[in-house]
Parts: sequence; structure tokens; C-alpha cells
Amino acid sequence: MPIRLAPAVQNLINELQKLPGYGPRSAQRAAFHLLEDRTDQIESLRNALVNAKREVHHCHLCHTLTDDPDGICPVCRDNDRDHSILCIVESVGDQMALDSSMAWPGVYFVLSGRLSPVQGVGPADIGLPDLIERIDEGCKKDAFREIVVATSYTPEGDATAYYIIDLLKKRWPDLHVTRLARGLPSGIEIEYTDLNTIANAVYSRR
Amino acid sequence: MPIRLAPAVQNLINELQKLPGYGPRSAQRAAFHLLEDRTDQIESLRNALVNAKREVHHCHLCHTLTDDPDGICPVCRDNDRDHSILCIVESVGDQMALDSSMAWPGVYFVLSGRLSPVQGVGPADIGLPDLIERIDEGCKKDAFREIVVATSYTPEGDATAYYIIDLLKKRWPDLHVTRLARGLPSGIEIEYTDLNTIANAVYSRR
Repeated sequence: MPIRLAPAVQNLINELQKLPGYGPRSAQRAAFHLLEDRTDQIESLRNALVNAKREVHHCHLCHTLTDDPDGICPVCRDNDRDHSILCIVESVGDQMALDSSMAWPGVYFVLSGRLSPVQGVGPADIGLPDLIERIDEGCKKDAFREIVVATSYTPEGDATAYYIIDLLKKRWPDLHVTRLARGLPSGIEIEYTDLNTIANAVYSRR
Repeated sequence: MPIRLAPAVQNLINELQKLPGYGPRSAQRAAFHLLEDRTDQIESLRNALVNAKREVHHCHLCHTLTDDPDGICPVCRDNDRDHSILCIVESVGDQMALDSSMAWPGVYFVLSGRLSPVQGVGPADIGLPDLIERIDEGCKKDAFREIVVATSYTPEGDATAYYIIDLLKKRWPDLHVTRLARGLPSGIEIEYTDLNTIANAVYSRR
């Protein structure tokens, strides 16, 4: 009779497997690690999940994650920022990376990922209706000077950007919509850079 | 003012980072994924953790994970197995891999990892006192014909095996203690096999 995993263990493996970066084997390893652990990590992870679920929600304005009780995140409340320029990003991770560069003086709108017809992720799933509403409000007050569509330069990120730009241009033909520059990354030898990146650096030379 | 993560989010990232295979960036990605998710994955993961913690415990005999209410796992209760031969493994994952090979007809003892003086993991941490007790009981009944020390052939696994074999030989000089064979793995060309493996295959030729 081969070894059968207890259903509770199998269920934990299934849940861990849904996390990004985990496959069947690594999820199994993580489950065994949690169940073996002598420091009661399973309890502290459970508490972290409960607390995060209770305390964290999406900012009413930019949809980033925040625990602010009045529902507006510190970035959207920051008077030192330029609230007339808005940067659209795919995720909180992207927002944090961009903001860490100290190069963006404006505010953000955080999507829930990117469009993916193959995986059934449509405009409403990534929060585009909320984005339109946000810009609508801003445009009523004649607030937005520029919208940067900062989705990643992957096929899906590109498609999402085209979709958003099309949407914005149809609705507000005069709105100034840009994308992040394409070109050579820092610290990379041209010789070892992929041809697509080199081509884009040539086309966008200035 | 740079973006600051909510403490509950940072805490969730810290907890996820303790899981095997996760570093700071991947744990952050997993935390954002859980908090973004529309299918309430955070709730199902929490439930899986609670259920696993409540239902799963270590088998009294072999220390594997089981949800059996009487505390003995199905393998230890299996009368079709040879209870006079015991295989010592490092983890439940190792036990499952070994058992899936259908080559081991005996029972197991599952350690909690391997000795690691650098990380402060000593004999009691991996459950060696319980192993001694288990073999002691078996030897009283003149039960064990053979003990296989099936730790992995890594430096720490090797050291753990030497430590265990030394322990067993001092206590029961007549006990037949073996290790898994070293040699060429299946489906690998000799040309592309590492020299250590080839050398061991030569020394252990038969």
C-alpha cells in the first residue's frame, strides 16, 4: 500500500501551490516544512494572513494596498507630490520599484495585473472601470496634465498599454498620454544586450 | 516621502519569506498576490493552515505526518510490510519518494532534517533520541534485522549518517546497519556524470 498524504496536508499543499513561484514539489516541501517546524511558524503565518486581511485594503483613489483607516493611502494624501500627473502601474510591486527610483514626482493608479485573454483576465478584472472613474474625476477639475502608462514591456503588458491608451484617447482626445522610455538598461554592455532592446534604443535615440 | 508598506503587509512578507524557496522579492510578490486576489485565496490558505495544524500530527512510531486519530500512521499499521527492517530518512518528502519507488518493503523512521552544527541543529532537534527509543523497543523484541540509514549524499546528510551509524554501532554492536547504494543514476550518460559519482560507482562495483 503506497503512502497516502493526509487530506489536510494535501489541501495545504494545494493552497501553497497557488502562490507565485511554487510548483507541486516546492509547495509540498513548504507544507512539510511548516508542519515539521518547531517554532510554530504555521501559527505566525496564519496570524499574518488574518491581520493582513483585516487591516489592509485598497486605497479609494489609487488602489494601492494601505492600512490607513480613512481609506486614502499616504501617497495620495502627500501634498509634496504633483497630483496633476498620474502613473498607471500593473501592481503594488511595480509602484514600489518605480517610487524607489525617486524619479516620479506624481501620483499613481495601481491596476490588478494586466489583460490576459488567454487566462480570462479582462478590463474589469484589472480595474480599468475604476481607472476611468479616477481620471474622469481628475479631468472634471482640469487636473491631469499627463498620464504615464507604465505597464511592463512584455507582450501582455504591451497589449494592456495599447488598450488603455486607446481607451483614454477615445474618451479624452486632448489628454497627454505617455509611456516609459525604451532603451538600454544601466550597467549592461551593448554586446550582451538582446537585439530587441538595442533596436528600441536606436529608434528612440535623441 | 517614499512609499511605506503597511506593517500588516510587511509582517506577511516576513512570514512568507521563512518558507523554503522564498527570498525577499518572491515573498513580497506572494504577499501582493494574496492581497490582490479576487478569489479569497488568503482565506482558503488560512483555513488550510488551521486544518493542517489541527488534524495532522507525528506518528508515534515513525514520526511521519498523519491524521490518524489513534496516532499510528497507515504504514506502521500495514501488516503487509516487513517490520523487521527499518529505513531512516530525513523528511516526509524523502520517505514518499523512497516509497514511491516500490523498492522498500519495510517500515520507516522520519527524522526532522539533518544535523547542522552551523545552523545550531543538533541530535535532539532532528529526533535522534526518539529514534534510539524506537530501535530500543524493536531490539527488545529481537525485531530488527536491518537498519538502512537513507540520509542524502550531501555533506550534511553524510555527517548525519556517520553520526547515526556510530550511535547505533556503539549501542547495538550486532545490529546490521546499511546505507543506500552510491553509483550511477538511471538515464544519465557516463560522459556527463560528475566525477565524484563515477568514482563511487567504480569503488562500489559488483
